[in-house]
Amino acid sequence: MNWISDNNILIVGLGLMGGSYAKGLKRLGYKVEAIDTKESSIEYAINNGLIDNGYAYPDENAIRKADAIIFALYPGIIKEWIEKYQHLFKYGVRITDVTGVKSCIVYDIQKMLRDDIEFVPSHPMAGREVYGVENADDAMFRGANFIVAPTDKNTKEGIEWCKSLGKVLGFRKISVLTPEEHDDMIGFVSQLTHVIAVSLMTCSDNTHLVDYTGDSFRDLTRIASINEEMWSELFHMNKDALLKHMDDFIGEMSEFRDLLAADDIEGMKDKMRLSTKRHSYFIKK
Amino acid sequence: MNWISDNNILIVGLGLMGGSYAKGLKRLGYKVEAIDTKESSIEYAINNGLIDNGYAYPDENAIRKADAIIFALYPGIIKEWIEKYQHLFKYGVRITDVTGVKSCIVYDIQKMLRDDIEFVPSHPMAGREVYGVENADDAMFRGANFIVAPTDKNTKEGIEWCKSLGKVLGFRKISVLTPEEHDDMIGFVSQLTHVIAVSLMTCSDNTHLVDYTGDSFRDLTRIASINEEMWSELFHMNKDALLKHMDDFIGEMSEFRDLLAADDIEGMKDKMRLSTKRHSYFIKK
Repeated sequence: MNWISDNNILIVGLGLMGGSYAKGLKRLGYKVEAIDTKESSIEYAINNGLIDNGYAYPDENAIRKADAIIFALYPGIIKEWIEKYQHLFKYGVRITDVTGVKSCIVYDIQKMLRDDIEFVPSHPMAGREVYGVENADDAMFRGANFIVAPTDKNTKEGIEWCKSLGKVLGFRKISVLTPEEHDDMIGFVSQLTHVIAVSLMTCSDNTHLVDYTGDSFRDLTRIASINEEMWSELFHMNKDALLKHMDDFIGEMSEFRDLLAADDIEGMKDKMRLSTKRHSYFIKK
Repeated sequence: MNWISDNNILIVGLGLMGGSYAKGLKRLGYKVEAIDTKESSIEYAINNGLIDNGYAYPDENAIRKADAIIFALYPGIIKEWIEKYQHLFKYGVRITDVTGVKSCIVYDIQKMLRDDIEFVPSHPMAGREVYGVENADDAMFRGANFIVAPTDKNTKEGIEWCKSLGKVLGFRKISVLTPEEHDDMIGFVSQLTHVIAVSLMTCSDNTHLVDYTGDSFRDLTRIASINEEMWSELFHMNKDALLKHMDDFIGEMSEFRDLLAADDIEGMKDKMRLSTKRHSYFIKK
């Protein structure tokens, strides 16, 4: 399976995700270089065979020779980085990212990009509760979803190129959504669930209950250990979609609350029946 | 390990929980009989060696000879059943239950009970997403918590008797809580989490997202297939405690919502840090 014929890949940002991309692509035979401000991350990645070469600064030569660039930076700094260094990019280079929000960065980046460069936005829906290149492992891509989120500025070839990246990395399912569809979906299945887990943990001091928690509580709070730098940024960048989902959810919980307060047993049963019915679609998968 | 020296156990209500008690106690060598209105449940239990004998009606002889009676009925009908048949109970018999709410039934039952009979309330915190005696399996008790919830009407001996029942059945941890402590705890770790899972499923038609759900969404909705008869009754019987926890949770979600709406990144980070810190107590366990 081929992704690109030329083979110099540059990964900018070498954390858990950048490192996992590096590991997977290196294994496939690509020449992988990386740039990260953290010297120790570069050293770790070289010593453990995740990359061929790395730099704790934006090495001009590495940028110039890259046939493809993958941005695995925090979303807030990608645009700035590209603005500053795109004059060094190879003619016609293709770039992508790994960012968990799309609308708020995709259009801005495409707008200021050199005409010969195509940015194909994508989001690997994989993650772990640990962080850093030391925990990088492309095994986490198996069974996970890879979303390509193109705009009308993207070409058919660019989209195919990006889908192939997901395929060679071993993702289970490759989908194409608009940036807006992506953000609405991610606001619901990922961001709302994280707010719920956090709120369940912070709504009262529950640590004395540690001896009594069963599977239900453990399942609902598994994601309650959360990287506050990354997630606060993701929430903020997807503010409108997330607020809508939070309002829907809070409204629904409040409806259930009022049914209980009014001793409306049948009303509660209706909600439970709908829940069981909808859940069956998800179990079948 | 001994629970009781005499060995005629009567189980009233032969569903998932009653059947699992039967299976475990039979294996330990007790003589186990059961009463359930459903003929097919009795037949299944006899044919599969879960009980020695069973009746689809309140068999007078079975009730008279029982040395211990375990009520595994829906909470709403336990009191009525005892009221109707306690004149048949053996002198000094000990009884317990498996009900997931305590305050609203325990005092009522103890109040109308014959003076020579002791009712020691308990709650095996185990369950499965399936129901019925056909799914009974005492293996689900391993690793689970067993709560004894006595009042000041209970004796030291009665409480020890009930703790021993949990021990012989293989529960990981046996605790003693007041009915009120129990209900507050269960309202938080079990009932609130079920309301959250149901509300996440019912707050919008999300079935088109089935292809995009990852671990977070799956974890938070695992318990969204729910037996509406049992849970609506449990919620209703623990209304005050559950309403308090729901209000706390909805209030906390709303606070988070307002932080996001006001672009208060630091405020969101504070919540996430508290969540991560509290969650660490639960992970250690």
